[in-house]
Amino acid sequence: MPTILGQNQYGKAENRVVKITRDGATHHIKDLNVSVALSGDMDEVHYSGSNAHVLPTDTTKNTVYAFAKEHGIESAEQFGIHLARHFVTSQEPITTARIRIEEYEWERIAASDANSRFIGADEVRHSFVRKGQETRVTQITYDGENWEVISGLKDLIVMNSTNSEFWGYVKDKYTTLQEAYDRILATQVSGRWRFNWTDDEQRMPNWEKSYEQTRKHMLQAFAETYSLSLQQTLYQMGSRIINNRSEIDEVRFSLPNKHHFLVDLEPFGLKNDNEVYYAADRPYGLIEATILRDGAEQLIPVDMTNL
Amino acid sequence: MPTILGQNQYGKAENRVVKITRDGATHHIKDLNVSVALSGDMDEVHYSGSNAHVLPTDTTKNTVYAFAKEHGIESAEQFGIHLARHFVTSQEPITTARIRIEEYEWERIAASDANSRFIGADEVRHSFVRKGQETRVTQITYDGENWEVISGLKDLIVMNSTNSEFWGYVKDKYTTLQEAYDRILATQVSGRWRFNWTDDEQRMPNWEKSYEQTRKHMLQAFAETYSLSLQQTLYQMGSRIINNRSEIDEVRFSLPNKHHFLVDLEPFGLKNDNEVYYAADRPYGLIEATILRDGAEQLIPVDMTNL
Amino acid sequence: MPTILGQNQYGKAENRVVKITRDGATHHIKDLNVSVALSGDMDEVHYSGSNAHVLPTDTTKNTVYAFAKEHGIESAEQFGIHLARHFVTSQEPITTARIRIEEYEWERIAASDANSRFIGADEVRHSFVRKGQETRVTQITYDGENWEVISGLKDLIVMNSTNSEFWGYVKDKYTTLQEAYDRILATQVSGRWRFNWTDDEQRMPNWEKSYEQTRKHMLQAFAETYSLSLQQTLYQMGSRIINNRSEIDEVRFSLPNKHHFLVDLEPFGLKNDNEVYYAADRPYGLIEATILRDGAEQLIPVDMTNL
Amino acid sequence: MPTILGQNQYGKAENRVVKITRDGATHHIKDLNVSVALSGDMDEVHYSGSNAHVLPTDTTKNTVYAFAKEHGIESAEQFGIHLARHFVTSQEPITTARIRIEEYEWERIAASDANSRFIGADEVRHSFVRKGQETRVTQITYDGENWEVISGLKDLIVMNSTNSEFWGYVKDKYTTLQEAYDRILATQVSGRWRFNWTDDEQRMPNWEKSYEQTRKHMLQAFAETYSLSLQQTLYQMGSRIINNRSEIDEVRFSLPNKHHFLVDLEPFGLKNDNEVYYAADRPYGLIEATILRDGAEQLIPVDMTNL
Repeated sequence: MPTILGQNQYGKAENRVVKITRDGATHHIKDLNVSVALSGDMDEVHYSGSNAHVLPTDTTKNTVYAFAKEHGIESAEQFGIHLARHFVTSQEPITTARIRIEEYEWERIAASDANSRFIGADEVRHSFVRKGQETRVTQITYDGENWEVISGLKDLIVMNSTNSEFWGYVKDKYTTLQEAYDRILATQVSGRWRFNWTDDEQRMPNWEKSYEQTRKHMLQAFAETYSLSLQQTLYQMGSRIINNRSEIDEVRFSLPNKHHFLVDLEPFGLKNDNEVYYAADRPYGLIEATILRDGAEQLIPVDMTNL
Repeated sequence: MPTILGQNQYGKAENRVVKITRDGATHHIKDLNVSVALSGDMDEVHYSGSNAHVLPTDTTKNTVYAFAKEHGIESAEQFGIHLARHFVTSQEPITTARIRIEEYEWERIAASDANSRFIGADEVRHSFVRKGQETRVTQITYDGENWEVISGLKDLIVMNSTNSEFWGYVKDKYTTLQEAYDRILATQVSGRWRFNWTDDEQRMPNWEKSYEQTRKHMLQAFAETYSLSLQQTLYQMGSRIINNRSEIDEVRFSLPNKHHFLVDLEPFGLKNDNEVYYAADRPYGLIEATILRDGAEQLIPVDMTNL
Repeated sequence: MPTILGQNQYGKAENRVVKITRDGATHHIKDLNVSVALSGDMDEVHYSGSNAHVLPTDTTKNTVYAFAKEHGIESAEQFGIHLARHFVTSQEPITTARIRIEEYEWERIAASDANSRFIGADEVRHSFVRKGQETRVTQITYDGENWEVISGLKDLIVMNSTNSEFWGYVKDKYTTLQEAYDRILATQVSGRWRFNWTDDEQRMPNWEKSYEQTRKHMLQAFAETYSLSLQQTLYQMGSRIINNRSEIDEVRFSLPNKHHFLVDLEPFGLKNDNEVYYAADRPYGLIEATILRDGAEQLIPVDMTNL
Repeated sequence: MPTILGQNQYGKAENRVVKITRDGATHHIKDLNVSVALSGDMDEVHYSGSNAHVLPTDTTKNTVYAFAKEHGIESAEQFGIHLARHFVTSQEPITTARIRIEEYEWERIAASDANSRFIGADEVRHSFVRKGQETRVTQITYDGENWEVISGLKDLIVMNSTNSEFWGYVKDKYTTLQEAYDRILATQVSGRWRFNWTDDEQRMPNWEKSYEQTRKHMLQAFAETYSLSLQQTLYQMGSRIINNRSEIDEVRFSLPNKHHFLVDLEPFGLKNDNEVYYAADRPYGLIEATILRDGAEQLIPVDMTNL
C-alpha cells in the first residue's frame, strides 16, 4: 500500500448543553458547547470501513448529556476532565481523548422595585441575560497518564484611547507609514494559558477562581502598559499572568491590531485633535506570541489561538 | 417606456465612526455604525445615468465624520437628527433622509489595586472593554417637516429557567408536541420603539435615559411574567414599556423561541428533573407583534425588527 | 387597557428540509429552508396566554416535512403555495399565511473516466456538490382569496472590470471624491420580483423556468450596460426583467456598491494602469430601487430586499 | 526575568487584492486575501518596545499591492513565493516568512444572443460572477533555505444520497444509535495537501493544474466510494490524491459529518422511504485524519485544517 494513515481523531463536535441547578428558588446556569475528539487504534475504520473499534459519535454526544446529570458541571475544566477520563479508561481502543469546551456566561436580571418588595429579594432568581462579552474556552487532553489543560478566552475587545505610540521602525522602499506618538490601541483578544497541573496526584487548581484572576491580570496589564508596540503590550499581558498565577506556565496570545485611523478633516476646515476615528475591518496587523515561565516547555500550538 | 421607477434611495452604509472625548485624563467613547439613505428627485440618475442631482455616497460618508467633530455625538439619536436635517435642508433634490445607526457600548477596565493607589482612582480612565451585549439601534427619518424616530436593540439573549408553560393549544393531524408545564423560555430580543416626538416644536426626549429605562422595563417584564405563551410575554414586555414611557407610542418585537429541549436520559437509567437541556439552533419558533398606545398609528414596518 | 395589539404573526422559522427523489439510479435533490408565519384571530394568546387558537409552531414544522412527502417539492414556490393554502383553509382562526423559503442549489459530481466506462454513464447519479453561488428565495402570502408571490435571490456577487464611470455629481463642502472615467463596478445582488399571478383561476407560471430566465436577463443587463451610475445599471437590470418576463410586474434591488479602490503605487515608482485594486468591506454605497411595469402597484416592502 | 518569549510572529493579515489583467478586450481576474506573518530576531520589540527590527505591518501590506504589479499574480502559490522570499532576503532580522492566501474564483457572465451577434463573441469579456463554491487556500513558508507549500480548500459541501452505511460499531451503556444500511453522507470539506517541492533547485509544480486535478480526484473518490464509515471515505479521498499526484506527499482532511436525519412520518400515516430528511446544524460528527505517502514525514499541523 503506497499510502499510510497519519494522525487521526474523531468525535462529536459542538454539543450544546445547558445545565440548570436549582438551589431553592435560586437557579444557576452552566451553558457549554462541548466537542469530543478521540484517537487510538483506528486504522481499520480508515482502511476497510470496519467500525469494530468505533464508539459512535452519537454515543459521545449522549455521554456529554448523561455526565451533565451524573457529575454536574462544576466548571468547564472539571467537566472536561470527567469526560476525557471516561473515554480513555472505558474504551480499550481509545488511547487519547481531547475535549474542547466553549462557555457562555449569564448574569441575573435585576427585579423591579415593586417586584422586589413583593418577593422580598432584589433579584428575580430564575431570570438571566447572556453576558455576551468574551467566550471562555478550555481544552483538556488525556492519554491515560497525563493531563494537559489549556484554558483561555476569545472575542474580548479592548481599547486604550491613548498611551500608545509607534515609531522608530524599519523603513524600506515600500514604507509609507507616518510615525505616531498618540494613537488608539485596540484589539480583540484571543488568549490561551496552559496549567502545570498534569497528573492526578497533584492538587487540582480552582478553575473558576483561576479564570477570574487570570482575566483580571490580563486586562490590567493591557490598561496599565504605556505601549510602544502591540508586541510590548502582549508581552506585558502574558508575563503579568505568569508572575501572578503560579498554576500557569505558558500563555499564548493572538492579537489583531484593530486599526482606528484618525480621519483627515482638514479638507473641511476642521482640526481633528485625536477625536474622530474610522474603525477599519481589514486588513489588520496580527501579533502573536507565546510567553513562558523560565524553564517551561512550549506546548501550545502556534495555530490554536486562532481556532 | 413600459417600465417606471418606484421607491428608491441611496447613500453610504456602515460608516464606522469612533469619537473620543477627553475630559482631562478621563476619556469617553461613542462607537457607532452609521448608514445614510437619501431619496428625492432622482429619476434621471436611474433613467440616463446623469448624476446632476446626486451627492456622492462618498460625500455622505465624509459628512458623518465631519459632523462627529462639528456637533459631537451626544447620543445616536441626536447625531442622526443632525445628519438627516443637513441632507434635506442643504440639498435641493433630497426630500427625505433616513439615518440608521448601530451603537456598541464600552465599559471601563478596573485598575489594579496597586495602580489605583498610585493614580488615586479606582479606574484607569482611558482603557475600555467592549460590553458585547445587545447592539443598540436607531432610525431617524426626516422629510423636511416631520421626524420619525424609532429606536431599539437587537441580539439581547434572555432566559427564564422556570415559570413558563405551554398547553391548551390546537391539535390537528400533524400535531405531536407534548404539553409542557415547566419549561425554559429563552429568546434573542429584537425590539423597536417609536417615539411620539415628531416635530422641532416639541420638547425632545432624553434619548440616553429613555433607552436605559425602556430596556430596564422590558427586561423586568420578561423576568416577572409567569408565561403561558411567548406571545403573552411579548405583550407584557411591550405594554410595560408603553405604560411606563410616555415618550413612546408603539413597540414591535421579533422574538425567536430559542428552544431548550429536555434531554431524555432514561435510556441511561437517569432521571432528568428539569436539569439537562439541549440548546437547539434551528428551527425556532418566531413570535412577532406590535403593541400600541391606544389611539396611536401603527408605523413600524413588519420586517424592520428583523433587519 | 391603555395598550392594544397591532400586527402580529407566529410560526416555525428555518425548517431545513432535504427531499431526495429517486428516478432509478438517478437521484434529484431539493434543499430548502422553510419559514412559516401565520396570523389571524390571535388576540387572546397575547392578552391572557390562552392557546385555544394556536396551532403550535412545532405542528407547522411537522407539516413542512409531511408535505414534502405528500406533495413532493416541484419548486419552492409550488411547495409554499401548498403550505399556505393548508394553514388558511384548515385552521379557522388563521386568516393569512406567509411562507418564506430559501433554496440551495446542488450540481452533480462528474465521474472519473474509468468509472464512467464501468457504469456506462458520464456522471455518478447520486453524488452532488453544493453550487454555493446565490441563494434563491421566495415568499408566498395567502389570505384565503388572493396570492402574492415574490421571488428572487441574494448573495450573487458580480463585477464589471471596465465600462463604468462616475462623474458630473453634486459637490458640496464635504465632497472630496475624484471623478472616475474607468472604474470597477461590483455588487452583491439582492433582488426580489413580484408575479402578477394572484388567483387560482389564472394559469400558474412555470416557476423554475421563470427563475432561470429572470436571472439570465438580470445578469446580461448587468454585463451589457455601459454604466454612468450604479442606479442606471440597477434600472436596466429591473427593466430588462419587466420587458422580458410578462409574469413579473415589479422588481426591487438592493445593490451594495462593493468598492474596489485603485491602489496608489506611485510612492514605489510604479504606475497602476487599472490593474491593482484594494477590495474594501465597509463602508459601501447602497443603492436601492423598485422598478414597475407601467400601471402596476408598488407592493414589495422597502426593507424586504435586505432580509 | 522570570518569563521568557517563545514562538512569535507578526504581519498584516487579510490584505484584499484584486488584480485585473487586460488581454485586449478580454479581462482576467485574480482575487486574493493575503496574510503575512514574519518571525526572526524580535525579542526587543516584546521586551522593551523598541521597533528597530520591525518592518511595519503597513509596509507588508504595501508590498503585497506593489508585488501584484511588479510580478503579477500567476497563481496564489507563485505570488506567495515571491512575497516570502522578499521578506526573508531583504530584511536582516526576518528569518522566516509565512504567507497565507485565500483565493476566490470568478466565472464569466454569458452574453445575451442579441449582444453576442453584435460583438461577434459568445461572452462579454469583462463581466464576471463570483463562483462562490469552495475557497482555495495556500500557505507558503520560507526560512531562507527551504520551502514548505501547503495548499487546499475549504467550504466545499458535498453529498452522496445513497451508498453509505454505518453499523457494526461499539455499543456501551450510553449508546442508543440505530444501525443504518442506507443513509445520506454529506460533509463540508476542509482539506490541505503538502507539496514535496522544497527547494529552488527542484522543478516547480504547475500550481494551477495541480489544484484542478487534485480537486477532481478528491471529488471522484468521494463520489465513487461505497462508504461504511466517513473515515473510510476520507482515507479514499486522501490516498486517491497521493496515488495520482506525484507532487503531493501528505494530505489532511477535516470532515464534519453534516447529519441528515430521516424524518419520522409515521405519526401522520406516511412512510418515509429515504425521501424526506432534516438537515441538522449542530452537533456534528467531526472526522479528521492525515494520509501520507509511505516514507513521508507528517508536517501538516493537526489544527491547520480548521483555520
